Order: sequence, then structure tokens, then C-alpha cells
Amino acid sequence: MALIVQKYGGSSVADAAKIKNVARRIVKTKEAGHKVVVVVSAMGDTTDDLIKLASQINESPDKRELDALVSTGELVSASLLTMAIHGMGYQAISLSGAQAGIRTDTEYRQARITKVESKRVVSELEKGNIVIVAGFQGVTKDMDVTTLGRGASDLSAVALAAALKAERCERYTDTDGIYTTDPRLLPEARKLTEISYDEMLEMVTYGFKAIQPRAIELAELYSVPLLVASSFNDNPGTLIHKEVSMEIRNKVRGIAHDLDVAKITIVGVPDHPGIAASIFMPLAAAGVSVDTIVQNASLENITDLTFTVAESQLKAAMAVVEPIAKSIGARKCIGDPRWGKISIIGTGMQNAPGYAARMFDTLSKANINIQLITTSEIRITCIIEESKVKDAVRALHRAFELDKDK
Amino acid sequence: MALIVQKYGGSSVADAAKIKNVARRIVKTKEAGHKVVVVVSAMGDTTDDLIKLASQINESPDKRELDALVSTGELVSASLLTMAIHGMGYQAISLSGAQAGIRTDTEYRQARITKVESKRVVSELEKGNIVIVAGFQGVTKDMDVTTLGRGASDLSAVALAAALKAERCERYTDTDGIYTTDPRLLPEARKLTEISYDEMLEMVTYGFKAIQPRAIELAELYSVPLLVASSFNDNPGTLIHKEVSMEIRNKVRGIAHDLDVAKITIVGVPDHPGIAASIFMPLAAAGVSVDTIVQNASLENITDLTFTVAESQLKAAMAVVEPIAKSIGARKCIGDPRWGKISIIGTGMQNAPGYAARMFDTLSKANINIQLITTSEIRITCIIEESKVKDAVRALHRAFELDKDK
Repeated sequence: MALIVQKYGGSSVADAAKIKNVARRIVKTKEAGHKVVVVVSAMGDTTDDLIKLASQINESPDKRELDALVSTGELVSASLLTMAIHGMGYQAISLSGAQAGIRTDTEYRQARITKVESKRVVSELEKGNIVIVAGFQGVTKDMDVTTLGRGASDLSAVALAAALKAERCERYTDTDGIYTTDPRLLPEARKLTEISYDEMLEMVTYGFKAIQPRAIELAELYSVPLLVASSFNDNPGTLIHKEVSMEIRNKVRGIAHDLDVAKITIVGVPDHPGIAASIFMPLAAAGVSVDTIVQNASLENITDLTFTVAESQLKAAMAVVEPIAKSIGARKCIGDPRWGKISIIGTGMQNAPGYAARMFDTLSKANINIQLITTSEIRITCIIEESKVKDAVRALHRAFELDKDK
Repeated sequence: MALIVQKYGGSSVADAAKIKNVARRIVKTKEAGHKVVVVVSAMGDTTDDLIKLASQINESPDKRELDALVSTGELVSASLLTMAIHGMGYQAISLSGAQAGIRTDTEYRQARITKVESKRVVSELEKGNIVIVAGFQGVTKDMDVTTLGRGASDLSAVALAAALKAERCERYTDTDGIYTTDPRLLPEARKLTEISYDEMLEMVTYGFKAIQPRAIELAELYSVPLLVASSFNDNPGTLIHKEVSMEIRNKVRGIAHDLDVAKITIVGVPDHPGIAASIFMPLAAAGVSVDTIVQNASLENITDLTFTVAESQLKAAMAVVEPIAKSIGARKCIGDPRWGKISIIGTGMQNAPGYAARMFDTLSKANINIQLITTSEIRITCIIEESKVKDAVRALHRAFELDKDK
């Protein structure tokens, strides 16, 4: 008898019929002889609707109050799902994040889990209950409700799986696994049977919005195997785990892309120590996340500094950077939202320099200019024009033979 | 600087604009130099909507889960109201029933408050916060959420007022006070300036659905003055308290009526000890609340037993009573939903027998037959035909000069 943690996303519990469907899947797992803990998201668009309601009342609502508000969505779906399981004749109980022992710091909206006190969950499992936990939320030591960031029901599930030493964490949504690239962009994208934590983390960090990055990090830290599958069919999903099979190592596993890229170039920056800090510290203080940074080779102590931010942060970033550029004597400052990012990801790449060459060659043959390049041990990323991203995905998917099942 | 507890009903916080209106009222009280604790109900029809959703998933949902579900409505309104107060530049914080220290037993749906641990509320008040508490809910010692019964946000407010030794509990809804009778039935009904706890309790128990009876009992027990007023205007409301002015004692204060009355008569019951218990104990076990009971004088050891129940419980009551009637050898059993109840209420009545006579005479002159009569120290109730209730209210209102302001 294994302990399985399952997580169902908002689209899987969007209405009464879908909640009953999820209940049937949970009962099937229970019937297979497992102990089952389920983490559930809020129904459909509930969270967005609550945020909209709040914005009608206060344009910049207090974070603590916003957490108290939006965390109710998961309480609703957890109790409804529990009732559905009861209706099938099985024992179940719903628990809030607080009751499930998800303790956090006081960083409302983005709280970090400090520990999971799993006593209550364990005792309910021992009574024979299927335990349904409200995802996305935790509680401070003063019993104030916090939320863990958008999409963080994934994180709740992995944290519970780690604390309970579950055999596996199964994450169900409306997509049935991880694909070599976004199938909406490229229909010939192929579903992966398995992928390593590191590869998955690079995929999601570089634009593949399949799963919350912190959930993957936590799964890796506690070696929790994470199955990504659909709640609407029984297709085999993708297993995210530590050791991927020998034969599928040493190759490109997937292509991530991101259209939400804006590029800022500060032209003619005097090249002396401290100049980078004078630009990037104020940006951080203003809450702007800077992604790729490239500084061109210095010529006569004058350099060009280029970096990327999310398109939605371009305006805020320019407001910070323009006065600084002026004060340090830079020539000018150019912001442009029309950029995108394309990445190839695979564990074996660091030992095979040919991959980078093949990527650049493929893009060149597709008549796509590369603006910036960054790499990690298992990833190569190019910043290219936004309008060329789709062509780039198609060309790279073919060049690295991702459409072939092997 | 006094401490005031205010309670706002669901219709007062039904949408964003109404929530802002309530926030303005609260801030006004704060500006008058008071410490303010606010108890809030769920927005509009939220509670009913959640119950409907539950019934789509499970026809008889578990009570604990139903409480976990419906209690979210008050969490939502409490945090939204807090945001509205923030928007006006005032400090405020929302607390769940659990955080506000409302401890209860484990009788889900109808939990009783066991104690109020007001530490957190007091500390938030000391920080200068207006404290917004989610009504209708409490928490067991295992931290499971309970609800206190329909309309029980009134009870939450009075319990907090008692625990905090508040100067007054103010209850705001869409009606601006307690009237001599239902103004929808009789436009000449007059608003009362004050009324005693006992009179109010008789009024609500006998059909005047103005306020939750347990809230009045608790207010009386802890001598909490309870103001009933409207959140939509500044009209003076009605103060429910201990000592009503000397000059308004010794007269009829109000007329309550109730159309939701069904009568059951068991004809030809053998009159021997234990027969009443054999009928009423199974009814209680089946969850049927029996109201008025009258047993006619015994004739040759055969009696007729008549009692009333709510119309919605007639079917369930008959299902219990019919087989019992047969087994004890009664002649027959008649159930009839077309009955109503009319009551005159006033503190001085026990010392003035003329009131009962005047009531019966008034009904007789209006050609209304009285089926059953019951009395308390401060109330006389007649069971009459449902179709005659409106006429009876009008005739009695005039006979006892309730339309005259004195």
C-alpha cells in the first residue's frame, strides 16, 4: 500500500460534473489499495474573479487581506470534492492549508513554506479517510492565512508529498504531459515519457508554463517523483524524476519559447567598476526582474549594456534606467518589447559542443538573427525577434529530431 | 472612548458599492472616537448559492464539509470590507471566526459557542485597527470550522460584544428597526424606539423573523444593549435592552404572526399515562419541532390531541404519527397546513387580564374563529385560519392602539 499525493488544477474542478469526475479518479486510486492525499486548486476562474472583486473595492488591496480573500477559493473546491467522494460511498475529509499543517513565513502573496506539520493528515489517513487539502495556501505562526504565489497548488502538493514521504506526486490538469515543445505552436510536438528535474526546471524557467518552478525544485530536493497527466483521459503522462533512462540521455529533450521578452540597451556606458550595480540594484528595488544580461566588449572604456525584462515590466524598467543612464553619462537608452526567447534543453549538452553549433546553424539557415545568447549546463537560449519565434521552434524541433519517437 | 460592536447583514454588503457604503459608516463610528469591532455576513445570496452548489454534488452533504464550504462566504465579505476601509485611509484587519476566538462544540450546522477567546481581537484593537470578523462561524478545539445556524452572525456579534464588554452591539440590515407588526403586512405599523429582551424574544419566537432568537437570549444573559437599525439610512433604530421606560410598560408592544403553521389532530386517543410521550418522543427523534400542544378534556377516557408544526415538517410529522395513532388505537389522524398563528406581546400583560379578553373579543368581532390558545407571561397566541391572519393583525393593531405613537 503506497501513499500517493494527487493534485488537480482549477480546470479539472471547474464545475459540479468535473468535480464528480475527479472524485471517480481519486476513488479508483483508493480502490487500487493506496492511501490518497489530494491537493486541489480553486474552481475554474474563481481566483481571478475574487481578485477582480477586490480591485473594484480597492485598487491596491492589502496583501494580507488579498490572501485571506483568494484562499477561500480552494476551501470551496476542497469541501465540494470531499462531498463528491462521500456521494460515492467513500470516507473523506477536507482540510484547509492551516489544518494540513502548511506553515509559512509572512510574505503574503508569495509566502515560503517553512515546514509541514503532517500530524493531522497522517491521523486522518489512519482513520481510513481520503484527505482533500486546499492548495495554494498556508498559515503563519499567528494563524494568518497566506498564499504561496500563482500556480502554487503544485507546490502544496509536492511539499505534502515530501513531508509524508509519498511514493509519488501526481499532478492532473487539462494537458496530458510534457511535450517536446508547445503543441499549440507546433502540432508535431511529441509527449515525453520522462524528463529530469533539471531539464524540466530549465523548460519552465525559459517559457514552458507547464508547472510551477518552485514545485519542481522542491520535488528535486526531496526526490519526489512527479507525474504530470490529464484528469480528462487515461493517457500515460510524463514522469519528472531524477534518473532518466540511459538511452534518452545526451540529447535535446525539449524546446522552450517565451514571447514575453523586452530588450533594453544602454548605449555608451562608461566602463568602470560599480556601474552595473548602479543600474541593477535600483531595478531590483523597483521589483523589476532582469533576465539575460550581456555587456559587449569594452572599446575605449565605453561599453553597451543590454538586458531583457518581461514585456509587462518594460515601462517600469525604463522609468528606473533612463535617469540613471543620463546621470552616468551614457549616450542613450533604448527599450523594445518586440523580442522573444528560444531555448533548447537537454541533460547531455554540456559534453557535446556540437549542439550549440547546430542550433546557431539551424537559426541562420531559417534566416533568423540571434541578438543575445546565454547558456547553462543543460540549456542554450537565444534572444531573437518575437515574430521569428514560431519559425525558430519549428526549425529546431526538426533539426534535433524531436518529432521522432526514440 | 467606548467599544462598539457592529454587525452588517448580507443585504448590506451585497455588492462592491454597498460594501463601500458600510465602510463609510464604520469609519464614521471610528471617527466619533470609538473602538470598533465589526461582524459581517456573507454577501447577498452567497450562502444559498454555495448550498445549491453542494446539492448538485451530493444530495445530503456531510455537515462538517457543508460548514467548511459555507463559512467561506463570510471570509470573503470580511476581507473585502477591510480593503474598503483601507481605501479610506484607515487601519483595519479581517479575522476569521477561528482567529477571533469563537470556540464552539462540534455540532456542525448548529454549533454552540463554548467560549470567546478575545486576545487577538483585543490586541488588534490596541494596535489601532478596526477589526472585521467573519460572522456565522466558529472553530472546534481540533480547529475544524463550524457554523452557528442560519442568521447566526447576530449571535457572533452579541458573543463578541459580551466577551469584549462592549458598550453596545449595533445590528444593521435593510430594515430600520423593530415595528409593532410586519410593515409589509400592515403599512400603519409603527417603529418602536425600544423594546425589552423578553418582548423581543417572544416576538421573534412567534413569527417576527427580525433577529436570531439565540442572539437575543445571549444579549439578555450578558446585558448587552442591542440596537437594530438600517445600514441604508440614518433613521434612529430600535434599542433592545433590559429596562424599558416606565411609561411604555404595561401595554401591548407588538403583534407577531406566522403563516407557517400546520395542525395535526389525533382523534380518539385512549387517555392513559405515557400516551403523550409515545407520540412526542418519536417526533423529536425524527427532528420535528412541535410547537403548541393542546389536549382536550377527557371524555370517557378518550381524548383528542392537537398540536402544530411548521408546514415544511407536516409530511415528516404525519409519517411518524400515523402508525403510532393506529398502534395506540386512536380513531384517526388529520393533518392540515392551512393554519396561522397570531400573538400579542407586551411586558405588562400578566398583571392585566383584560388583554386576553380584548384579544378574543377583537377576533370574534372580526369573525375569526380561534382554534387553539397558548400564553406566556408576556404573550397571548391564537391559532387561526391562515387566510384570516392578515385581518387579525389589522384588527388587533387597531384594538391595542399600536398605530398611535405614545
